[in-house]
Amino acid sequence: MSAQQPGQVIPTLSWIGGIDGHLRLIDQTRLPTEFVEIECHDVPAVWEAIRKLKVRGAPAIGIAAAFGMCLGIQNTVDADEAAFFARLQATADQLATSRPTAVNLFWAIARMKDFATKLRGKFPPREMAKALLGEATAIWEEDRAMCRAIGRHGVELLADVRGVLTHCNAGALVTVDYGTALAPIFAAHEAGKRLHVYVDETRPLLQGARLTAWELQQRGVEATLICDSMAAQVMREGRVQAVIVGADRIAANGDTANKIGTYSVALLAAAHNIPFYVAAPSSTFDLSIESGEQIPIEQRQAEEITHGFGRQTAPTGIDVYNPAFDVTPAKLIHAIICEHGVIRPVDREQISSMLGRKLEKQSV
Amino acid sequence: MSAQQPGQVIPTLSWIGGIDGHLRLIDQTRLPTEFVEIECHDVPAVWEAIRKLKVRGAPAIGIAAAFGMCLGIQNTVDADEAAFFARLQATADQLATSRPTAVNLFWAIARMKDFATKLRGKFPPREMAKALLGEATAIWEEDRAMCRAIGRHGVELLADVRGVLTHCNAGALVTVDYGTALAPIFAAHEAGKRLHVYVDETRPLLQGARLTAWELQQRGVEATLICDSMAAQVMREGRVQAVIVGADRIAANGDTANKIGTYSVALLAAAHNIPFYVAAPSSTFDLSIESGEQIPIEQRQAEEITHGFGRQTAPTGIDVYNPAFDVTPAKLIHAIICEHGVIRPVDREQISSMLGRKLEKQSV
Repeated sequence: MSAQQPGQVIPTLSWIGGIDGHLRLIDQTRLPTEFVEIECHDVPAVWEAIRKLKVRGAPAIGIAAAFGMCLGIQNTVDADEAAFFARLQATADQLATSRPTAVNLFWAIARMKDFATKLRGKFPPREMAKALLGEATAIWEEDRAMCRAIGRHGVELLADVRGVLTHCNAGALVTVDYGTALAPIFAAHEAGKRLHVYVDETRPLLQGARLTAWELQQRGVEATLICDSMAAQVMREGRVQAVIVGADRIAANGDTANKIGTYSVALLAAAHNIPFYVAAPSSTFDLSIESGEQIPIEQRQAEEITHGFGRQTAPTGIDVYNPAFDVTPAKLIHAIICEHGVIRPVDREQISSMLGRKLEKQSV
Repeated sequence: MSAQQPGQVIPTLSWIGGIDGHLRLIDQTRLPTEFVEIECHDVPAVWEAIRKLKVRGAPAIGIAAAFGMCLGIQNTVDADEAAFFARLQATADQLATSRPTAVNLFWAIARMKDFATKLRGKFPPREMAKALLGEATAIWEEDRAMCRAIGRHGVELLADVRGVLTHCNAGALVTVDYGTALAPIFAAHEAGKRLHVYVDETRPLLQGARLTAWELQQRGVEATLICDSMAAQVMREGRVQAVIVGADRIAANGDTANKIGTYSVALLAAAHNIPFYVAAPSSTFDLSIESGEQIPIEQRQAEEITHGFGRQTAPTGIDVYNPAFDVTPAKLIHAIICEHGVIRPVDREQISSMLGRKLEKQSV
């Protein structure tokens, strides 16, 4: 167990050393009661960390897999090229089984493989390993830069704000550092602004209570934990002047799918004339989806609600409705903060203008 | 442990036998996983049931205390009058310490004492004991009649309704039978109407999951349990056409204090054009309070949120805001259902008209 002091910022995951180094990551299954970092020295350790949700959230899983590829080839840096590539492929195949529904996992593995394939024949394995570590580090850096950019753009929206409410965990723990919804809060805090964050506990899985509350406490940001049903009262008492949440998926018109309860918070914010913001990387937009109506709502297991706290809290056999997320209509969202800037008002034109412009600029 | 079948209705508490009988009550601390009835044969047993929340809710606590008075005098029915009254007073003093904040406890004890005092010198102790059992039974009957009247009046509001949402537990378990918010639902169900009830689990103490879900299941009413944060989604999907909740206290203008989260549900209902109803006995009105602004919001312990059910789910030392209830403004309430009828629209005039008329009629 690592020593950890409040206010000290530890990245969710980081690579320690050179090509013979290892991956260090925060074990999120031990939070919030214990802060434990895991040292992953081989592929099975990374596989287990992803599989057992010790690392979670799309960006963080992708980055763990990218560094996992670097661990996989450590024993073949002095072997011949064929052995090196065979090991690379075996590592990719193994890591792909860790969490088969995580899109970012496959994206990161493919990016590392493609990168190696382009260099094949040009460098010996040892140089290839260095280049691959550079590529994994680039993915890590890109994620960090994306979060920091969201933080920078979001700060302006918090200028006249003292209290902010957030739902679920779209913080540093799903990324390298800083997060998405929490990025503007961390950026404002680091710039010396005093903010007070109200944290919805976020039933059924309590990501707000377990993770967001912990992250804010760790960085010394004033935070108060509430039950989801208390958000309206907190708003009514004038305790918050803004709401910021993350996003799972954003349609072309700005309708936003996010953790169940987000739509509820958006309606309550509207009823109290409090601006409601979504913070998410541009990769969250799915422009092939016209509107939120086309996003199917996944149902999760009843036990998350009936046996939520390690104990049965509802009668045996009761019917349960447990949607994983909901869709907040664009009209309830005052702005979407992405790494390229602030989209406001939230509509099809502003979204395609912001994303189109940036797509052109990056020549993608 | 008693055998108990779904659909079979067992009163929350009942007196078994004559003046040498005893009080039977459902142990609510064992629900929803176990159905256990406690047989209280003496005052300490009733004291413990109230103290340890085996019986809860204002009406039910009052009734338990009234029958507790009957238990207290069982050994003095053949003694002299002085001994009988000394025992009555000792019982009153003892029961009063069981839950010193429960207003109905004191009301019921005082009613029993006053009743006995009026009869003093007119009947021997044995006859007094019979009369006191009659008075306790009258309190029980009045509560039952009140709930049934709310049920009768509320049924009309559910005429075009298939799905109803409720928050917390204002059901049979806080009364003799039928409850307040659930009374119109039970009345409609017994009249053959098919209703489907969505039950907010009601964090932090989960009265919805533990008690309301159990009551509905017991009576064979279709019910689905949800987290509080899912109510908006359930409304959006068109699953409910009405919301019914209970009340802790109603001001002269109709502003209603009830379990935390009620105000949130009222706002969400308004956003979806779903009528929001409050069901409560006329004793819940406090006409000395002009509006909800004058009702102070009690704060409860942080542990209810951070250590919900035997397990720590938030970081040590995190600040918590835990208001026990909130106030729903009258303008969000479509009607208040009391035992005298339906108050609609909810305003000062309609309230004083309904309560004033009934107060005159009862010559109180």
